[in-house]
Amino acid sequence: MIKSGDDYIKSLKEWGNVVYYNGQLVDDITTHQGLIPHINSAAQTYEMALQPEYEDLMTATSHLTGEKINRFTHIHQSPDDLVKKVKMLRLLAHQTGSCFQRCVGCDALNATYMTTYDIDQEHGTEYHARLVEYLRMIQAENLMVAGGMTDPKGDRSKPPSQQADKDVFLHVTEKRDDGIIIRGAKAHQTGAANSHEILLMPTQTMRTGDEDFAVVCAVPLNSPGILQIFGRQTNEERKFESGLDIGNAVYGLVGGETLVVFEDVFVPWERVFMCGEIDFTGLLVERFATLHRQNYGGCKGGVSDVLIGATALVAEYQGTDRASHIRDKIAEMIHLSETIYSCSIACSAMGSQTPCQSYYPDPLLANCAKHNVTRHIYEIARLAHDIAGGIMATMPFEADLKSEATGSYVEKLLAGVAGVPTENRLRILRLIENMSGGTALVESMHGAGSPQSQKVMYQRLSKMDMKKELAKRLAGITD
Amino acid sequence: MIKSGDDYIKSLKEWGNVVYYNGQLVDDITTHQGLIPHINSAAQTYEMALQPEYEDLMTATSHLTGEKINRFTHIHQSPDDLVKKVKMLRLLAHQTGSCFQRCVGCDALNATYMTTYDIDQEHGTEYHARLVEYLRMIQAENLMVAGGMTDPKGDRSKPPSQQADKDVFLHVTEKRDDGIIIRGAKAHQTGAANSHEILLMPTQTMRTGDEDFAVVCAVPLNSPGILQIFGRQTNEERKFESGLDIGNAVYGLVGGETLVVFEDVFVPWERVFMCGEIDFTGLLVERFATLHRQNYGGCKGGVSDVLIGATALVAEYQGTDRASHIRDKIAEMIHLSETIYSCSIACSAMGSQTPCQSYYPDPLLANCAKHNVTRHIYEIARLAHDIAGGIMATMPFEADLKSEATGSYVEKLLAGVAGVPTENRLRILRLIENMSGGTALVESMHGAGSPQSQKVMYQRLSKMDMKKELAKRLAGITD
Amino acid sequence: MIKSGDDYIKSLKEWGNVVYYNGQLVDDITTHQGLIPHINSAAQTYEMALQPEYEDLMTATSHLTGEKINRFTHIHQSPDDLVKKVKMLRLLAHQTGSCFQRCVGCDALNATYMTTYDIDQEHGTEYHARLVEYLRMIQAENLMVAGGMTDPKGDRSKPPSQQADKDVFLHVTEKRDDGIIIRGAKAHQTGAANSHEILLMPTQTMRTGDEDFAVVCAVPLNSPGILQIFGRQTNEERKFESGLDIGNAVYGLVGGETLVVFEDVFVPWERVFMCGEIDFTGLLVERFATLHRQNYGGCKGGVSDVLIGATALVAEYQGTDRASHIRDKIAEMIHLSETIYSCSIACSAMGSQTPCQSYYPDPLLANCAKHNVTRHIYEIARLAHDIAGGIMATMPFEADLKSEATGSYVEKLLAGVAGVPTENRLRILRLIENMSGGTALVESMHGAGSPQSQKVMYQRLSKMDMKKELAKRLAGITD
Amino acid sequence: MIKSGDDYIKSLKEWGNVVYYNGQLVDDITTHQGLIPHINSAAQTYEMALQPEYEDLMTATSHLTGEKINRFTHIHQSPDDLVKKVKMLRLLAHQTGSCFQRCVGCDALNATYMTTYDIDQEHGTEYHARLVEYLRMIQAENLMVAGGMTDPKGDRSKPPSQQADKDVFLHVTEKRDDGIIIRGAKAHQTGAANSHEILLMPTQTMRTGDEDFAVVCAVPLNSPGILQIFGRQTNEERKFESGLDIGNAVYGLVGGETLVVFEDVFVPWERVFMCGEIDFTGLLVERFATLHRQNYGGCKGGVSDVLIGATALVAEYQGTDRASHIRDKIAEMIHLSETIYSCSIACSAMGSQTPCQSYYPDPLLANCAKHNVTRHIYEIARLAHDIAGGIMATMPFEADLKSEATGSYVEKLLAGVAGVPTENRLRILRLIENMSGGTALVESMHGAGSPQSQKVMYQRLSKMDMKKELAKRLAGITD
Repeated sequence: MIKSGDDYIKSLKEWGNVVYYNGQLVDDITTHQGLIPHINSAAQTYEMALQPEYEDLMTATSHLTGEKINRFTHIHQSPDDLVKKVKMLRLLAHQTGSCFQRCVGCDALNATYMTTYDIDQEHGTEYHARLVEYLRMIQAENLMVAGGMTDPKGDRSKPPSQQADKDVFLHVTEKRDDGIIIRGAKAHQTGAANSHEILLMPTQTMRTGDEDFAVVCAVPLNSPGILQIFGRQTNEERKFESGLDIGNAVYGLVGGETLVVFEDVFVPWERVFMCGEIDFTGLLVERFATLHRQNYGGCKGGVSDVLIGATALVAEYQGTDRASHIRDKIAEMIHLSETIYSCSIACSAMGSQTPCQSYYPDPLLANCAKHNVTRHIYEIARLAHDIAGGIMATMPFEADLKSEATGSYVEKLLAGVAGVPTENRLRILRLIENMSGGTALVESMHGAGSPQSQKVMYQRLSKMDMKKELAKRLAGITD
Repeated sequence: MIKSGDDYIKSLKEWGNVVYYNGQLVDDITTHQGLIPHINSAAQTYEMALQPEYEDLMTATSHLTGEKINRFTHIHQSPDDLVKKVKMLRLLAHQTGSCFQRCVGCDALNATYMTTYDIDQEHGTEYHARLVEYLRMIQAENLMVAGGMTDPKGDRSKPPSQQADKDVFLHVTEKRDDGIIIRGAKAHQTGAANSHEILLMPTQTMRTGDEDFAVVCAVPLNSPGILQIFGRQTNEERKFESGLDIGNAVYGLVGGETLVVFEDVFVPWERVFMCGEIDFTGLLVERFATLHRQNYGGCKGGVSDVLIGATALVAEYQGTDRASHIRDKIAEMIHLSETIYSCSIACSAMGSQTPCQSYYPDPLLANCAKHNVTRHIYEIARLAHDIAGGIMATMPFEADLKSEATGSYVEKLLAGVAGVPTENRLRILRLIENMSGGTALVESMHGAGSPQSQKVMYQRLSKMDMKKELAKRLAGITD
Repeated sequence: MIKSGDDYIKSLKEWGNVVYYNGQLVDDITTHQGLIPHINSAAQTYEMALQPEYEDLMTATSHLTGEKINRFTHIHQSPDDLVKKVKMLRLLAHQTGSCFQRCVGCDALNATYMTTYDIDQEHGTEYHARLVEYLRMIQAENLMVAGGMTDPKGDRSKPPSQQADKDVFLHVTEKRDDGIIIRGAKAHQTGAANSHEILLMPTQTMRTGDEDFAVVCAVPLNSPGILQIFGRQTNEERKFESGLDIGNAVYGLVGGETLVVFEDVFVPWERVFMCGEIDFTGLLVERFATLHRQNYGGCKGGVSDVLIGATALVAEYQGTDRASHIRDKIAEMIHLSETIYSCSIACSAMGSQTPCQSYYPDPLLANCAKHNVTRHIYEIARLAHDIAGGIMATMPFEADLKSEATGSYVEKLLAGVAGVPTENRLRILRLIENMSGGTALVESMHGAGSPQSQKVMYQRLSKMDMKKELAKRLAGITD
Repeated sequence: MIKSGDDYIKSLKEWGNVVYYNGQLVDDITTHQGLIPHINSAAQTYEMALQPEYEDLMTATSHLTGEKINRFTHIHQSPDDLVKKVKMLRLLAHQTGSCFQRCVGCDALNATYMTTYDIDQEHGTEYHARLVEYLRMIQAENLMVAGGMTDPKGDRSKPPSQQADKDVFLHVTEKRDDGIIIRGAKAHQTGAANSHEILLMPTQTMRTGDEDFAVVCAVPLNSPGILQIFGRQTNEERKFESGLDIGNAVYGLVGGETLVVFEDVFVPWERVFMCGEIDFTGLLVERFATLHRQNYGGCKGGVSDVLIGATALVAEYQGTDRASHIRDKIAEMIHLSETIYSCSIACSAMGSQTPCQSYYPDPLLANCAKHNVTRHIYEIARLAHDIAGGIMATMPFEADLKSEATGSYVEKLLAGVAGVPTENRLRILRLIENMSGGTALVESMHGAGSPQSQKVMYQRLSKMDMKKELAKRLAGITD
């Protein structure tokens, strides 16, 4: 069983996922600078669970075994569990200032747990029992599971079965006695490079004709036939440098996403949790989306706290922290950050029990949480830029600060208030740059579903008929 | 004991508050068209508590007596109580589409309950016991209590004791053996015209020299020396008409605010809960503000639901409900409404216990709830106007629809889709007008504190030092 | 020829338009309190043209006669004329704080002037010459012309000819030797109650089968068969009071819109400027819309200036004008107001010549001007409410201030800083209420076309193909 | 005289500015990949001036010599010149999708031209004549001039003379018979690395005691004692790659800013245009700011056009271009882009003559233009991200597409609609990334002054007294 962060890193070295980075096969992901920060961040989900002060948030009691388990492998048993999940995410974001990736698998496990139960009720299948067995193993070994939902999708105006190349949607190519063969890909896979397992789910509601694409199953990421291609991040090259310019040297930024390719991968039946039941694809997608959207006010609220702190610091370093407009802008950043956090707390506290006895966040409010994130993170970043000043975009390389020819100029000319080393000012500016640039923002926008996907849910979930009746009654309309 | 809505109205008739409306003394507020809608709305806080399906939200069990009481007289005993308060407010707003006024007194009772306990601990006073006795009476008789905080304030750049006329702040003018004499006024008093009691609190932190202004006490609103002047609302004249043009004929809009004048009013000592303890004025104000800001996502969320329903209806009536931009705007209205609701739920679910064992919402998140309301209600109104169309502002009088000379023109020319009577279209447009105009918006902005009052709290409550430390650590700054 | 404001009012008395107000036929619109403010406002378009300091903006030289004419009857002869139009509108809004209504006819004349020329070129008709004759008369007599575009429209999902009752679109019912008979209605007709003439235009692009609805013609508003029904405004009853509570006692708010009914009205051929040429309906609508949207940053910019001034004053009166957040919010109001003004200036300065040699604003930028108004006026109003405070919505009636029983209380309790009479504070608050409430905002949103109508134009006018080519070239895409 | 883009590049090679990049002295800036894109972009200011179709915008007639000159060296002689400047900037941004840097010097020349005239009038100095001579040379040789205003500033709560190290503000250290010696630095110097000259101005209003900091002068950037340190941009490393991943391979992004260090640089008196006249520092700063803020709706409007085109293309490539929400978001991007452009046009068209007969944009509206840019560019970027999708942040390296091991996967899995090569989709996504990330946004925010600097101007320039008088009159207040 993996316990500490070091255990986790050691386990990854042995696991041997096949990952390509910048056109090259990575020998050992745990020693490759392009991946290290993301691995460090995920390792915190292990490490902090060992610390007594965080135990209440970071661990839970398995409803299957009664054992203490990592909360990321837990099936939510109460609204309080849902709230603790959000608090745990904020805590980890405080620690890492980044994405720690492990929530995706947790959400996939929970969504699949609920839905396999319902499929079995309807179809007399045995998916739920299989999933429970799988879950026992994950909990016992404390594995990191990626959640694989988003397919590349090709031409978005066409269903899976009508794509020119069907591989743009993951699908079953063969059903054998001992298992199935799957093929295709999953895109934007946060943390997959450094996960042990991946729990695969369909990316959208499947219709008649698309049965092969209605597949849920789990596979080890080191399975034959799987390869991953690491995405290029904003300023990714700085990860290979010594430090100051990268901003967040230890934990990097966002999750380190990969394109995961499945080239005829075998999955034994005991790892298959849906296979052709198109009538449950919509429900599964909605549940995973809800569980994942629930998170965003937690982790992004936490990330925003760090960014707010960094921005307040840079104002101090530059001598502008007393200006009323600066104070007002920081208050606005706090407002936006607490708003997204509130939404995540609310959907959790309003969670309800599912038929299988687990707990599920309020879906309308979970969508609301995520939708606010798609806007507010951008505004928080904008305000950070406002306060940090143009220097954020024009400051020299670390090498200029260290150079004999130019170091003394940088040192004295970029000094702020007395007593603050220029290097500290640059460090905090680089952290702001790291947290408020391209890749970080895009992830807040599109992770757990694009803005429009939440708007679509609003129409469905908001009880419009009831609202219209209320209005009619008050307007004195009888019909 | 008052039970039903009718009981309540009858009690008001007997109570005999002195209210001026449009320069005239009101004979009987329960038969005066300017007040009836507000009384109807408050009456729902009694009436709905009698309905079994709403009992769980509308009533509670007194921690003092174990009796079932109206939730508006309850001291919160758990986060669940706090959440139920918010849900109750949304429910009542669904019923009334308006303000039902009674939350103010509930918040005043809770804030005073907590704070008298703390004053007694510090000063060895006996305020808490007095308050408990008062509360027992309120719970037993089920009285409606106004919460009186906001003073007129005069010149805002000066403290109370330096105002040209001290009456712009309520204050003690005499301390006698049997009680105190108070003088001054409270402005914007929601529901005071039709409440039985008022629980008075200082309007701001008081400093040395302002001890006379640090007074908390309760008085019946029919006490000698009290008179109220009713505020003029947007389109208030329509309340005196037959109906269609008023929009919300039964419940009117917002709370019906008065300026309450205290002309040397006597208060016996058993009704005095603070008298000179300036060191607790700030805490009391903050607590009342938090408890009151907690509400706004509940009641305004509910009011917004009605407005969203009305807007969706008018789109149907006009044949525009399938247009994608209309659908998108309605989704946006839902988003904003659920956001404010989420914030109120979150601060409630994150509530914590006070020294006196009652429960208190998270103050940072409660401020966040109210601050979002000050913005989102305006945007919701704007979107309602967008969808309703210009007809909202140019449609004829009801009399034109009823007139022989013009009725047939209005009837046929303002018809929308087939099958919807023109009158219904006009009714729903008038409801939208009622809910999205001047007074309604201003109340959402300034009730429970102006926007800036929340921003000030953000700086204080948001743990900036912790945030800065997080940023420093990630940026590699050691100092 | 009408010269002064008084001449104009006298002319209206004689003209004798048939107007219903609140179900009653109005005897004399010039002595009816419901209409007087709007007439006062329109009268300023005459009166200010007589004042030497405004002559350059308020008058122009007729390109037909070389005579000095009122600019509202002018055909724009240069970009400078277009810019002066916008400046004139801001000037008049400064004077009236309201809508002065006369721009609509000006825009109708200009749009019709351009388009009759083009129709004649294509169809060999003689509309332009007729229009020129009509224009000579309008310029010579200095008449006020309403511009009638918007039809009631009925079920918006159906074309005119398929409506259950065709009268929801104005149309020709008979063509005779001497002229045509028209029937139907125009809605939201700003200033029509107190105009002499109305220039009627189709409300949308007409298709085959809708030829009868493709009619442009001018009729005196006192023609047999025309009746108008006056719309009910926000707080319209206050116009019948003595003064303080109305806010803007002299000029009221917005334009005083009517529903104009045409019950078989005869129009001689010399007043018909289009009759069945459906191929030019779209162009005419677009041109009128552009010319009218051009205005909104002028007049609403001017109205906003007054509202900003009022808001700054109320802050002074209440002692909050030095607070940094108040100053920031006023700066924001200025920003929004100058933004809309800038857009109107820009589309004017970028105006271009039409085939008939008149000048036309840049249509993309004119849409941009109006679209910003649909948002910014609401935000300006919201900020005014923020600064004014809750007192705006809860202050007593004027009668309470005047009453012996309550006057002294209102006087002393609602006093602000020393030296400012309470009445002045109330006056400025009522002005803010008047300018930032329901009807005023809705007009800013929907006048000259709803927000969506501008968005539709963006797609058409913004040269997307060119933009895509620029992007391709820079991205190195060759195809 | 420099004519073509090639001439310009050749001239730079000879000029020999001392530039450090990433800690290393750059041998030849014209062959250094970190600088080439910026040089290419600036070269377009020469090259496009040679093309007949752009001549009207790109060139002007010198008011000194009557010769045709590059518009970037022109002193504006009319509002039309001001408008053409804005149009020229939009045109160049269409061509480059980036910053072409040369406007700064143009604005510096114009601001100095006006202000030297005024100083001479007041102080009897001869600065204006010197400046005219300098200008003749610049026009004749068609040199590129950087405009140096922003000093590093150190502790912002202290004036220049009280800084711990005075070098954080540029200042005169010695006045000699033949000239002066200056020392200090200028930060964020757009285009300075590849300019010939720099025209230096004080960074803020100087007070008594800060006379040494009130210096305006021009120096060749290859002068002894000057060295520049190049700022690190977002994704700057990609400039050293082959192409696809950089996004805008030819022109890069923004201007390539440097920190320019002045280590006791000699300036002959004929190049000194202010020396100690602190009473004119405020006016000079305001004028330069106005002239520079005028630009932003031009260049950023043009850059936004490219980004809008790229976003529309990516929607096509991905098969989402017909979705109503996509169309609406693109319309919104157009709205924002045309709004900023409108503001720049408006301040230009409303430009007025200065005492020296040159023309100056309306300062209130110029501030409005820039302030809108500080917001709208961020929202345009956010909408681009929304439409582009998460793939923007997770797509593989170009090397993955080219690699034998992974290329075929990337090729087929990231394909969009049929017929569009995957590479083209990636190219356009990389262009969007390039244009909407960190450095690009920050420059739009802080170039020509931070948001607060515009808000401060609003209060000063907006004629608040007039606005208050308008409100008083309408409210019936006489005092």
